[in-house]
Amino acid sequence: MFDYIMTLRCADAPGIVHATSEAIVAVGGNILENDQFTDPVTGQFCMRTRFEAPSGEVDDVKGRLHADVARFQPILGLRLEAHQRRALVMVSEADHCLADLLYRREQGELPLDLVAVVSNHATCRALSERHDVPYYEVPVAPESKLDAEATLRDLIATYEVDLVVLARYMQILTPAFCNDFAGQIVNIHHSFLPGFKGARPYHQAYERGVKLIGASAHFVTGDLDEGPIIDQDVVRVSHARRPQDLIALGRDIERTVLARAVRLLAEDRVAIVGQRTVVFAQ
Amino acid sequence: MFDYIMTLRCADAPGIVHATSEAIVAVGGNILENDQFTDPVTGQFCMRTRFEAPSGEVDDVKGRLHADVARFQPILGLRLEAHQRRALVMVSEADHCLADLLYRREQGELPLDLVAVVSNHATCRALSERHDVPYYEVPVAPESKLDAEATLRDLIATYEVDLVVLARYMQILTPAFCNDFAGQIVNIHHSFLPGFKGARPYHQAYERGVKLIGASAHFVTGDLDEGPIIDQDVVRVSHARRPQDLIALGRDIERTVLARAVRLLAEDRVAIVGQRTVVFAQ
Amino acid sequence: MFDYIMTLRCADAPGIVHATSEAIVAVGGNILENDQFTDPVTGQFCMRTRFEAPSGEVDDVKGRLHADVARFQPILGLRLEAHQRRALVMVSEADHCLADLLYRREQGELPLDLVAVVSNHATCRALSERHDVPYYEVPVAPESKLDAEATLRDLIATYEVDLVVLARYMQILTPAFCNDFAGQIVNIHHSFLPGFKGARPYHQAYERGVKLIGASAHFVTGDLDEGPIIDQDVVRVSHARRPQDLIALGRDIERTVLARAVRLLAEDRVAIVGQRTVVFAQ
Amino acid sequence: MFDYIMTLRCADAPGIVHATSEAIVAVGGNILENDQFTDPVTGQFCMRTRFEAPSGEVDDVKGRLHADVARFQPILGLRLEAHQRRALVMVSEADHCLADLLYRREQGELPLDLVAVVSNHATCRALSERHDVPYYEVPVAPESKLDAEATLRDLIATYEVDLVVLARYMQILTPAFCNDFAGQIVNIHHSFLPGFKGARPYHQAYERGVKLIGASAHFVTGDLDEGPIIDQDVVRVSHARRPQDLIALGRDIERTVLARAVRLLAEDRVAIVGQRTVVFAQ
Repeated sequence: MFDYIMTLRCADAPGIVHATSEAIVAVGGNILENDQFTDPVTGQFCMRTRFEAPSGEVDDVKGRLHADVARFQPILGLRLEAHQRRALVMVSEADHCLADLLYRREQGELPLDLVAVVSNHATCRALSERHDVPYYEVPVAPESKLDAEATLRDLIATYEVDLVVLARYMQILTPAFCNDFAGQIVNIHHSFLPGFKGARPYHQAYERGVKLIGASAHFVTGDLDEGPIIDQDVVRVSHARRPQDLIALGRDIERTVLARAVRLLAEDRVAIVGQRTVVFAQ
Repeated sequence: MFDYIMTLRCADAPGIVHATSEAIVAVGGNILENDQFTDPVTGQFCMRTRFEAPSGEVDDVKGRLHADVARFQPILGLRLEAHQRRALVMVSEADHCLADLLYRREQGELPLDLVAVVSNHATCRALSERHDVPYYEVPVAPESKLDAEATLRDLIATYEVDLVVLARYMQILTPAFCNDFAGQIVNIHHSFLPGFKGARPYHQAYERGVKLIGASAHFVTGDLDEGPIIDQDVVRVSHARRPQDLIALGRDIERTVLARAVRLLAEDRVAIVGQRTVVFAQ
Repeated sequence: MFDYIMTLRCADAPGIVHATSEAIVAVGGNILENDQFTDPVTGQFCMRTRFEAPSGEVDDVKGRLHADVARFQPILGLRLEAHQRRALVMVSEADHCLADLLYRREQGELPLDLVAVVSNHATCRALSERHDVPYYEVPVAPESKLDAEATLRDLIATYEVDLVVLARYMQILTPAFCNDFAGQIVNIHHSFLPGFKGARPYHQAYERGVKLIGASAHFVTGDLDEGPIIDQDVVRVSHARRPQDLIALGRDIERTVLARAVRLLAEDRVAIVGQRTVVFAQ
Repeated sequence: MFDYIMTLRCADAPGIVHATSEAIVAVGGNILENDQFTDPVTGQFCMRTRFEAPSGEVDDVKGRLHADVARFQPILGLRLEAHQRRALVMVSEADHCLADLLYRREQGELPLDLVAVVSNHATCRALSERHDVPYYEVPVAPESKLDAEATLRDLIATYEVDLVVLARYMQILTPAFCNDFAGQIVNIHHSFLPGFKGARPYHQAYERGVKLIGASAHFVTGDLDEGPIIDQDVVRVSHARRPQDLIALGRDIERTVLARAVRLLAEDRVAIVGQRTVVFAQ
């Protein structure tokens, strides 16, 4: 048997589950996992189904599915689970998120193909190469930002990248780039959104005297720090913690939250509905 | 439209979702929520579906459902969502869990009918009656335990009780009683199972010097404190906390965890599979 | 022996601990708990010491203490632990925080004297009076705000109030009032500051699609929602939760966080240093 | 100025703080941090003081301290903060805790000298050597356990080791070894003690159907898994998580809890009192 992951998005209507389950029965399949949600604000219906089927021909299975659900005009995704998503990781100098992703990949925790690392610095080359991931240094200067993004677009095309992971990448991507890859770029923001936006959030948190600090993984849109949130977490801090302590504690939350978000994306568990995400977590 | 909650349990096989969704389509229904899980240990398939349908005749809808899924030999549950579960709460002297359940019921947080309170003490009578819930004092002495349980059985029958909630009820029910109401009795254990069983768990926790204390809501089986766990939570404690502090902190966790478990049960979100529960949480 | 709580604030300098411990030795005392912190930003030294001494004459003990530490020009507080802080609670229509404070007081969790409840509504009268706490209905209209605050000032004076607890009080106090009682007013903000300020924070949180919601207990200053934070907490929420669910989950965090903050204040464990609090938690 | 960390343990009595602060004043010192606790069960008094003083001669400062507090017959510790604790890490095949400790050391999060890694396997050699930490492979067979411990004792002596960190070391040390280094060996137990002791705790947790899994860092005593607990943490798991998921989630808690415990020990923030620890956390 072959394991498939199907995702479906359309306006809600009676009969969608029936139609998809009919197609799955028709191809001799069996549902292993099924999650669905109808967003009350937009009326959007989202579904994720993991099923097994005797045929490994994705196009055949997709054809049958499409025939049965076409009347709902869905956005339909289907892939073999074994055919993993391909991710490109972007990083600047801080390496804690990249190191964590590479480690988890090695441990078998992340069902994802890490195809390349891109950085505007040389700092993480040794780390990447030790894990046999090609490393591209793409410097960014104010006047060369479009050139850098052109290189990045080439790499995304060459490596057939599904997902761009900003793992503490400190450059701002242009709105044009963000729009062209909408829903494919995830960022870790080193703050508990919508708390401290902008620069030096841990220093802001210290000055404000908050008792919890956090991190947020979110999709990147043209509107900086304001894309749909995928996951967040916090840790308790006392008055005795200095800004450097908050930064160190923040590293733990950042790498954990980003890794959770990347895993959710690697398993097609996240859908964007308006300004919000639907997350079919386990 | 009428809202229904359907629960289904059977050995896993291809076509179950298709069959149920066919029946729902056939009665003019539309699925609002759907959760399912196949337990890898037992091969049991569990499903919970909330759907709306134009008919309010439960028997008609159930008949159609049954016809379509009978070949899977399921345990099938169906009720109108508006037809709430009926709970009887048992309590001894500590009133924090009872007070919390009554308060949440009043706030509209618990979609449950609290039909009666039974206690082996008079302590909580005023509290119950202030919330217009009848209070039955059923004393328990070693020699009168079966008499007390006979009274309890009568109350359960009279009030058509679906769920017995042991909200810090300090008497042990007989194995016969537990078996007769298997899957219908929920208890809050004032410890993080499988940590400290038996008496005075907070004192045990203090002596052991744990850094987290917890509480567990679980189904009651003949094997005391060992039924399937529904929910658990913990709170951090320092060396400076004395046993009485742990007891006070424990009250918060106990009432919160029990209320969460009772809500899950009120919404038919919990299934027992072997020694474990499947919880279709939101 | 009599138990005392001493608090001391001054610019940091060598010898402060020595001087205070000398005074405690001189009055035959023994230190039971001692916490201290020097704020690196302001250079302020904060100390809280719980000690026992054979004399119950506060003025005598304070005199000796003052003599020994006067050269540091401290703000010095001393009271018998048995002489509890006196709190006035303000509430509007939502009663969950008030009910929780009254319940904890009754359970012996809050070493605080709840002397009166003030509300701009009649809603919580029965609740307060059931716990034998006098209830004052002080309506507030735009044109009568100063009259209402005059009444409030009278009550504060009459009851010798140390602490004003805004337990979901929905009126805004004037800057003059906030300044006159600076460091004595605590509020529960139904959001994770500095997240969603202003009205309907749970609806804002829902629209933003956050994955954690929270509450913050903070001192009230003229600058609304921006006083020093005492405690905060969060709870995880999924996309499936509607605004009314967030409100219900929020009630739990609000009452828990406010109760923790009030207990900290009741035990003189909180000092304000600039925009931040020093919290000597257990 | 030189920064010192002093620790003191004795039976509680009036005047201890006064005596120590007198000595600190006498050497021209200034207290930077001070924590103390009197254990109500044993009557033991524990104190940790960080202070600065103009002299860098530890023996001089210690001499003066000792003279002033000798009448309390304390166990007195004093060191320059810059003179870091020396740790030897023991590991078997799983490398996540070791990798994490080495990474944090490199980031400046752990004020500790990692002097050597000892393993009964070759697995982690490359990792250790990449961080310039010498690696000793000391195989353990039932008949050679005492020989292995003799080698270990030699390494502890040679490297002047203060702390032995069992970072997922899967061999059991002999009671004699544990006794000889009592209070100097910390272990990470891959379970939430006193939950699942013994082998395969995540499988036990899965079978029991717990909703939270955890890890505990504790001192090692002859009584396996039963030494005083230093820190613990948990993570929420659902029914959908398989044993391998629990193991992966467990890695995160294990490395985080162990790192926290090691940092506390590196900063002399942990005292053992009977079966419990006093932890002067920030």
